[in-house]
Amino acid sequence: MLRTHTCGELRISNLSESVALCGWVQKVRDKGGMVWVDLRDRYGITQLIFEEGKTTADVLDKVRTLGREFVIKAEGKVIERLSKNDKIDTGAVEILVKNIEILNPAKLPPFLIEDETDGGDELRMKYRYLDLRRNPVRQNLLLRHKVAQQTRIFLDSQQFIEVETPVLIKSTPEGARDFVVPSRMNPGEFYALPQSPQTFKQLLMISGFDRYYQIVKCFRDEDLRADRQPEFTQIDCEMSYVEQEDVLNMFEGLIKHLFKTVKEIDLPEVPRMTYADAMKFYGCDKPDIRFDMKFVELNELVQNKGFQVFDDAELVVGINASGCAEYTRKQIDELTEWMKRPQIGAKGLVYIRFNADGTIKSSVDKFYSEEDLKAIGEKFNAKAGDLILIISGQADKARKQLNELRLEMGNRLGLRNPNEYKVLWVVDFPLLEFGEEENRWFAMHHPFTAPKPEDVPLLDSDLGKVRANAYDMVINGTEVGGGSVRIFQKPLQQRMFEILGFSDDEAKKQFGFLMEAFEYGAPPHAGLAFGFDRLVSLFGGAESIRDFIAFPKNNSGRDVMIDSPSSISDLQLKELYINVTAK
Amino acid sequence: MLRTHTCGELRISNLSESVALCGWVQKVRDKGGMVWVDLRDRYGITQLIFEEGKTTADVLDKVRTLGREFVIKAEGKVIERLSKNDKIDTGAVEILVKNIEILNPAKLPPFLIEDETDGGDELRMKYRYLDLRRNPVRQNLLLRHKVAQQTRIFLDSQQFIEVETPVLIKSTPEGARDFVVPSRMNPGEFYALPQSPQTFKQLLMISGFDRYYQIVKCFRDEDLRADRQPEFTQIDCEMSYVEQEDVLNMFEGLIKHLFKTVKEIDLPEVPRMTYADAMKFYGCDKPDIRFDMKFVELNELVQNKGFQVFDDAELVVGINASGCAEYTRKQIDELTEWMKRPQIGAKGLVYIRFNADGTIKSSVDKFYSEEDLKAIGEKFNAKAGDLILIISGQADKARKQLNELRLEMGNRLGLRNPNEYKVLWVVDFPLLEFGEEENRWFAMHHPFTAPKPEDVPLLDSDLGKVRANAYDMVINGTEVGGGSVRIFQKPLQQRMFEILGFSDDEAKKQFGFLMEAFEYGAPPHAGLAFGFDRLVSLFGGAESIRDFIAFPKNNSGRDVMIDSPSSISDLQLKELYINVTAK
Repeated sequence: MLRTHTCGELRISNLSESVALCGWVQKVRDKGGMVWVDLRDRYGITQLIFEEGKTTADVLDKVRTLGREFVIKAEGKVIERLSKNDKIDTGAVEILVKNIEILNPAKLPPFLIEDETDGGDELRMKYRYLDLRRNPVRQNLLLRHKVAQQTRIFLDSQQFIEVETPVLIKSTPEGARDFVVPSRMNPGEFYALPQSPQTFKQLLMISGFDRYYQIVKCFRDEDLRADRQPEFTQIDCEMSYVEQEDVLNMFEGLIKHLFKTVKEIDLPEVPRMTYADAMKFYGCDKPDIRFDMKFVELNELVQNKGFQVFDDAELVVGINASGCAEYTRKQIDELTEWMKRPQIGAKGLVYIRFNADGTIKSSVDKFYSEEDLKAIGEKFNAKAGDLILIISGQADKARKQLNELRLEMGNRLGLRNPNEYKVLWVVDFPLLEFGEEENRWFAMHHPFTAPKPEDVPLLDSDLGKVRANAYDMVINGTEVGGGSVRIFQKPLQQRMFEILGFSDDEAKKQFGFLMEAFEYGAPPHAGLAFGFDRLVSLFGGAESIRDFIAFPKNNSGRDVMIDSPSSISDLQLKELYINVTAK
Repeated sequence: MLRTHTCGELRISNLSESVALCGWVQKVRDKGGMVWVDLRDRYGITQLIFEEGKTTADVLDKVRTLGREFVIKAEGKVIERLSKNDKIDTGAVEILVKNIEILNPAKLPPFLIEDETDGGDELRMKYRYLDLRRNPVRQNLLLRHKVAQQTRIFLDSQQFIEVETPVLIKSTPEGARDFVVPSRMNPGEFYALPQSPQTFKQLLMISGFDRYYQIVKCFRDEDLRADRQPEFTQIDCEMSYVEQEDVLNMFEGLIKHLFKTVKEIDLPEVPRMTYADAMKFYGCDKPDIRFDMKFVELNELVQNKGFQVFDDAELVVGINASGCAEYTRKQIDELTEWMKRPQIGAKGLVYIRFNADGTIKSSVDKFYSEEDLKAIGEKFNAKAGDLILIISGQADKARKQLNELRLEMGNRLGLRNPNEYKVLWVVDFPLLEFGEEENRWFAMHHPFTAPKPEDVPLLDSDLGKVRANAYDMVINGTEVGGGSVRIFQKPLQQRMFEILGFSDDEAKKQFGFLMEAFEYGAPPHAGLAFGFDRLVSLFGGAESIRDFIAFPKNNSGRDVMIDSPSSISDLQLKELYINVTAK
């Protein structure tokens, strides 16, 4: 044993024990014949002390050569500190060191290994192993471990079995792009990496496993936005002989367990909202319900009063930014410009200000009487001091734009505290959505999602109206998980493939094994998957998932630390029966 | 809720409750106006009963259409069985069914869904989802889940943190072939799938994580022998500030915990054997110590007595097959032929039979006197009834051949009971082995393994003699895990790369990031990895790992169920900047 204790372990009860500690040099102070060293490891920091007269000259010479991040072993006696440090657990004691050993010297790190670092993103990624030494980053990964641990504890207690599904599977054309893997033993053929274990978990249900889960890596070869990773982790779950209600209850149980054990938060019952209501009242399918500020539709009140913009609009819709009547003309102009940016693309922004003195001022005063404005105000329950903001235009667009504005106003009003958590189920998603570009229907969730039984007749008449037994869990406006009741009968699955434009041949080639499996006794089943990286980042109160992944890739899909991807040898290419066509 | 109980749950205490069960039809018996159905799910089997007079004609008609593996829901009342079935947990009750619903019909399965099936390997793999319904296969996966669960419980209790390392990494030339993944965003470049997370776990130690583990998929593109899989699972572990002794103790703790919790076996202290002794006394580095039958070297006793074969041999070595003196001449001839097969390649087999009547008979009587043979017998502690079997030739070959013979005799003598477990540490492996074909030295474990400190001087004089701080855990003659103390200082790592014939450029290109990391304060560290599939199969008392993997691949690396790998589209190839060269 190199050490007797960790650097986070010693207390006043250890006084006068002989100990050996190992760790990294965080700081050295050398003053008036005394040298102090802060020694750090994963568990904490312990102060070492060296004193001329008490410490041998040899050891003093050695300690004076120490630099930041040197790895040392120190042996000595635990003594009481004169000036205690309440901020650290070991702050009551220090080690009067008899001997030190330099286990490994260290070059000066390219950035500070402290909570607040001076390292930029690029540098921190290149030296990720040093970044990971920093307390906040290490805490993120400890949190990740804890969430995984508690997830397993809960699901194990509910008789779920973790089953590993294969990573080398088969490429399918539906969905995002697959990463593929050329097979040396099967020339010209390729495996694909799974975007999710969807078909395998369904097969496990057909196998009678009844309750399955897996914390599993999945892969998507998509153009990476700021917060996407080519490899990501899911908590993947499936249950047999259940209905949607059972799944919602089970995973409401999981999320409550996680909040309780990880955050010490007692979550109340998780409310449910239909997709239709989410769109109508929040303009998006993942509303942030930490604050209200619901959409109010105004067509009946405002149209046919001579204001052409509203008259021509499919939808006139607004929100009440309560308490914002003090906004100056300049502030409102600035907000209007913000809405007009290409990312949002609003044509304009109408306001009605309910001043503190009881007067009303709007940007459409010339079209609407005070009575008109008051009537609008009533629809919003507006009171003195409120500011109503109104958007108009094509309905979907207007809702999307107003969603952005609502979230922005929520930020400005401090209504989106990352340490307050509001969980929501969004249910009754549409089964299908029409791709204008491709001129065909797409599965909104995936092709295995079951329509609501009462909507099945609509499959022959009005595809856009068919609702699915599909559900998302939304926390603070972020989708953290989603799933559906699955189709488990061959004829309905065949019908779905037809609707999605699969030829019989394609369907058979891609999913023949699943269709066949349906014929051998498939039970009703349903499931869902949580985005584990996202879930953990929410628990950590952070925006980006990257800080919760040990070795993330950058926006070009590169690992800049190990310099991957990279070229491979001609021999490797030859053995795999492939050529590179890129220059 | 579709069901109120599972098929393994009902007991006499549930009498007269109204229940709903769901499951698969295992068996239907129709006799004298009564119909019995065995309904099966993951949790057990419950008997349903239908009786003319008590059951409506409708329901009776329906139950008479049921076939094997139909999925049904049955509602009824729990009643006491007249003839109880002690073999199943629910055997005291049955359900008098009021109503059934056929949730999904089933075609007749291609093989029997029973403990003993009539399905061949190929068919079972193609319909793996049906094979997984069979009790023994399901039990294997439940066992796998339990071993994973208990592994995590133990390692969590020892402050190990599970950290996910990337799956898309960088190809390295050392070791087995990598699977590679072309990168669309980085044309002409490739990721590789990890053969192990070796460098990442070392970086985590450099990051100060102190104790890391991961149950993780790894990949090797090797020609598949009967019991290899292209993707396999490891329990991967690493610790900082430890010596070999600490690692052995920690993972001896893990294996004891697993045997205790999974098999209810109290494992005694795990013995240790040097690699040198393993080779000398068992002729292999993973001896099966469930039985003794140690090698005895005979050169001094048998050479220079006129028997040319022994005189010319580098090594004469034998075993005592105790109690086999009754072997007939024919049996010994057959054993000799078995040894001469090309797989083993022995030139011959010498025997000395210590008959029950005290006489001695050998195949080399004309070269050795009775005194000579007695002296040999003494070396083996041979007694009346024993059969000594002797091999000679080049030392390494003779040991290898005798190892095969020893294991074979162990089998024949019933000394290798799969339900008896003997665990062993093999230590002090050589650091390097010479590849005759390539005419260079290879790392026996991997290039990051540390030599024993006392053997470091030999790096300049006698590479073949350098021992490593490397260790394997062997259970019943199977290597289930292995690891080493790692090099953590740059100069020694550089020296290793030189010895392994890496140019400076290559070393830098492949492992530059690790070498650089060593300069920023790398702690001493060591670790190991268990082959999880293998470990679980041993716990299951089975030979093949395939039965402990939910969806295994065949010997050509194919998943015959989903028909993967497969061809991909020209568009996919184009986007990935590759061509296929195979016809």
